[in-house]
Amino acid sequence: MGAERRSMAMSDDEKELTAYHEAGHAIVGRLVPSHDPVYKVSIIPRGRALGVTMFLPEEDRYSMSKELLESQISSLFGGRIAEEIIFGPEKITTGASNDIKRATDIARSMVTKWGLSEKLGPLAYGEEEEEVFLGRSVTQHKNVSDDTAHSIDSEIRAFIDRNYQRSETILKENLDKLKVMAEA
Amino acid sequence: MGAERRSMAMSDDEKELTAYHEAGHAIVGRLVPSHDPVYKVSIIPRGRALGVTMFLPEEDRYSMSKELLESQISSLFGGRIAEEIIFGPEKITTGASNDIKRATDIARSMVTKWGLSEKLGPLAYGEEEEEVFLGRSVTQHKNVSDDTAHSIDSEIRAFIDRNYQRSETILKENLDKLKVMAEA
Amino acid sequence: MGAERRSMAMSDDEKELTAYHEAGHAIVGRLVPSHDPVYKVSIIPRGRALGVTMFLPEEDRYSMSKELLESQISSLFGGRIAEEIIFGPEKITTGASNDIKRATDIARSMVTKWGLSEKLGPLAYGEEEEEVFLGRSVTQHKNVSDDTAHSIDSEIRAFIDRNYQRSETILKENLDKLKVMAEA
Amino acid sequence: MGAERRSMAMSDDEKELTAYHEAGHAIVGRLVPSHDPVYKVSIIPRGRALGVTMFLPEEDRYSMSKELLESQISSLFGGRIAEEIIFGPEKITTGASNDIKRATDIARSMVTKWGLSEKLGPLAYGEEEEEVFLGRSVTQHKNVSDDTAHSIDSEIRAFIDRNYQRSETILKENLDKLKVMAEA
Amino acid sequence: MGAERRSMAMSDDEKELTAYHEAGHAIVGRLVPSHDPVYKVSIIPRGRALGVTMFLPEEDRYSMSKELLESQISSLFGGRIAEEIIFGPEKITTGASNDIKRATDIARSMVTKWGLSEKLGPLAYGEEEEEVFLGRSVTQHKNVSDDTAHSIDSEIRAFIDRNYQRSETILKENLDKLKVMAEA
Amino acid sequence: MGAERRSMAMSDDEKELTAYHEAGHAIVGRLVPSHDPVYKVSIIPRGRALGVTMFLPEEDRYSMSKELLESQISSLFGGRIAEEIIFGPEKITTGASNDIKRATDIARSMVTKWGLSEKLGPLAYGEEEEEVFLGRSVTQHKNVSDDTAHSIDSEIRAFIDRNYQRSETILKENLDKLKVMAEA
Repeated sequence: MGAERRSMAMSDDEKELTAYHEAGHAIVGRLVPSHDPVYKVSIIPRGRALGVTMFLPEEDRYSMSKELLESQISSLFGGRIAEEIIFGPEKITTGASNDIKRATDIARSMVTKWGLSEKLGPLAYGEEEEEVFLGRSVTQHKNVSDDTAHSIDSEIRAFIDRNYQRSETILKENLDKLKVMAEA
Repeated sequence: MGAERRSMAMSDDEKELTAYHEAGHAIVGRLVPSHDPVYKVSIIPRGRALGVTMFLPEEDRYSMSKELLESQISSLFGGRIAEEIIFGPEKITTGASNDIKRATDIARSMVTKWGLSEKLGPLAYGEEEEEVFLGRSVTQHKNVSDDTAHSIDSEIRAFIDRNYQRSETILKENLDKLKVMAEA
Repeated sequence: MGAERRSMAMSDDEKELTAYHEAGHAIVGRLVPSHDPVYKVSIIPRGRALGVTMFLPEEDRYSMSKELLESQISSLFGGRIAEEIIFGPEKITTGASNDIKRATDIARSMVTKWGLSEKLGPLAYGEEEEEVFLGRSVTQHKNVSDDTAHSIDSEIRAFIDRNYQRSETILKENLDKLKVMAEA
Repeated sequence: MGAERRSMAMSDDEKELTAYHEAGHAIVGRLVPSHDPVYKVSIIPRGRALGVTMFLPEEDRYSMSKELLESQISSLFGGRIAEEIIFGPEKITTGASNDIKRATDIARSMVTKWGLSEKLGPLAYGEEEEEVFLGRSVTQHKNVSDDTAHSIDSEIRAFIDRNYQRSETILKENLDKLKVMAEA
Repeated sequence: MGAERRSMAMSDDEKELTAYHEAGHAIVGRLVPSHDPVYKVSIIPRGRALGVTMFLPEEDRYSMSKELLESQISSLFGGRIAEEIIFGPEKITTGASNDIKRATDIARSMVTKWGLSEKLGPLAYGEEEEEVFLGRSVTQHKNVSDDTAHSIDSEIRAFIDRNYQRSETILKENLDKLKVMAEA
Repeated sequence: MGAERRSMAMSDDEKELTAYHEAGHAIVGRLVPSHDPVYKVSIIPRGRALGVTMFLPEEDRYSMSKELLESQISSLFGGRIAEEIIFGPEKITTGASNDIKRATDIARSMVTKWGLSEKLGPLAYGEEEEEVFLGRSVTQHKNVSDDTAHSIDSEIRAFIDRNYQRSETILKENLDKLKVMAEA
């Protein structure tokens, strides 16, 4: 979907909204610790969040620190929060859907793959399966109990909320910068 | 199913019912905020709601506001509510099934993909999987706990009910317009 | 299975039972509101309920009213109730399995697709998935919570019971007609 | 597996056990109402219970009465009960696995397909899906709530237990016949 | 994996452990009732438990008694218990994984297929599906309620524990025999 | 991902972090009982945890003792704990994700396959399926109840926590060794 979309003419409203959205990402990205200095989010074609998140653990960095990951979650929410601050809650758009997906995927991986949640501990809550086709397939389901699934849900939610709030605080304290950059 | 159906002769009752149905959509569509002025619903062939809803997030608009989405839900219910007001609850038809499906899909996406529900927060409640076939497939299940599933259900229901009621209020207050337009 | 079965010789008991079964359908079909005057059930080959129900929403009618759908459920039970009234509960046969399946499918669609249940509201409780094969497939699961599933179950049951009772009342009040028609 | 197995030599113990097993089926089959006079069970090759039960609803009978179905369940248990009465509980064998599977399948269909359980009512508790492959597939899951699944489980159990007990009573009252027939 | 593994040189520790493991199987196998006199376990290549258990109901015996099946479970645990008695709980190895899988499969089949559990009764708790591919497939899911699944779990556990304890008692009472045979 | 990754230049920070990570593995590996003297972890390409864990039960060892398995879990956590001790919790990286996955898989197999948990007993909690394609497939689902799934979850967690703590204690008591080795 990326290509045609880009080529499509944007309305001025959309351009202004997008300017604030991207500015929100950039400002938060600059003010959180360990964040990648070069801000690459806008390069990623929207509408392919799935593909993007698949590549997350393969980014050209040997490994990512907990601090960096939380900073990424915060900056991902910068765009949407900027929209809300400037245009109001009723005007929030679906434009942040990929950011939300990516932030959730990072938080989920922190909790279920990377052992970065104290509550869930250094375990892999594996929901992956492997199938080998040799005329027959043996599949391994590793379902978690509903109780564990609930702990995972609430922990992911906690990671998201904590960073959403951090991002909101940063943008409210830097409202002037946001406006200057967006108008640019 | 679209094509043959169109070519099929409609009974007069069906024509009248359809006239009120479409008029209901149009009137609500005009009176809710941020709604697309050109009303396109009737162009969409019925019976392919699934395909249609698949394309929703790819409509030729960079992004959609929460206000617009709720207005779409309201106008989608306009047709069915018009039927009920004019012909009575026993005469409501299945003709609104696609509208119901689309409205539910919008509400679901607002809650689970677009982070537009305060209750569920800015998270992606991903029920999507990715499979890559290289002789072997690795699937990612991202099930939510039953508790979270229940919160999602009731939030979707809340979005639907709120807009259904708005649509009903609008049509009752504009009963005269409805009749004029339907007879046209 | 239809074809060979028809060609197979029926015992006299079976013929009598079938006569009452079909008569039960016809009488209820005549006495419920909005029911299709031409009674088509017996044309449908038995043993292919699945295929039949698949076509239900595509019948050559632009849309069906709630009243009509409930009348169809009632008439579908006419056959089995006739068996029970005439031959007693121990003699009820499996011959009604398709009628039961179709009646349940109508009730299920009324509750989960067509928004015709006040309790569940104008929502689509989508249990459908879409898969697109492009070397990779993205599946959408839209599971409902167990709580919602339970509401759906009991609402479907309520629709069935209400119409089963209506059908039973009609046949008991028209026992004479039933016998006359069956003997014919 | 049928063929090779038959050709295999049976031990005398096995022959005696089998004699009592088949005699048990036959005696119960004769003493329950509406039961098919010609007793066909032993013709069916063991080890293919699945295939057999698949054909059950297609047997060359237009439809089967509730009475007949319960009689079939009773006679199916005749073999295993005969083993238990004659050789004791520790000597019960796996030889009855197909009978158990078929009896359970009949009871399950009575409850979930044929509407023959008062408790579950005249509904189809459909656990079937239909898939159409046109490059894409649309699957219909019709899951029941855990509460309903539990009602189905306990109702199937009730049908089985009732007929198991009937079969046991019949064989204990006809122990002499059982021995005579088995020795033959 | 079987082949290469055999060809691989074993350490002396492994040889001693294996000697006790196999001796444990053999001694229990000799002292439980109805057990197959010729002890075949060690012939079966390890690491293919699945295939093995698949063949269980097709072993060249017309049918197996409850007594025999429980004796098989007991002897299967003989190997692992011997390891524990001789080398201590910390030294128990994964070498018993196939025995554990087979014992569990036997217990599961006794409870869910062969009707040999008084608690679950003479029912088939079918977790099998049948798919027929004719461009379309109809699948039968026969899920049990969580309550029933829990009963099945605890009954299988009871069968396993009962026989594990019997096997442990036998080996402790025959410690001398175990040592003599293992050293041989 | 392995190859390109290796060829990629590492930052000095990453090199230092990796040095401590690998040193952590090695030190714990040396100080736990029954651990493989030659330390092979770093040879395994990261990012293919799945493949690795699949091979675990096929390693060139006839069988593994409970003691050895717990020692492997402990040493697997050595790397991540070293990172935490030296650089602090905020700097823990995703570099340990494969270690976490492998440790969890070992703990899971100990509980569900190898009967090494007293709480769950010597049972196979089989979540494997077998499919044979002969135009038709018969699948065996062996789901456990939610209650059992919860016991499995908490037991796996207990195995992980016990060994994580052991590993942490070892590294804190050998902080000097850790620094010396990492600087080397």
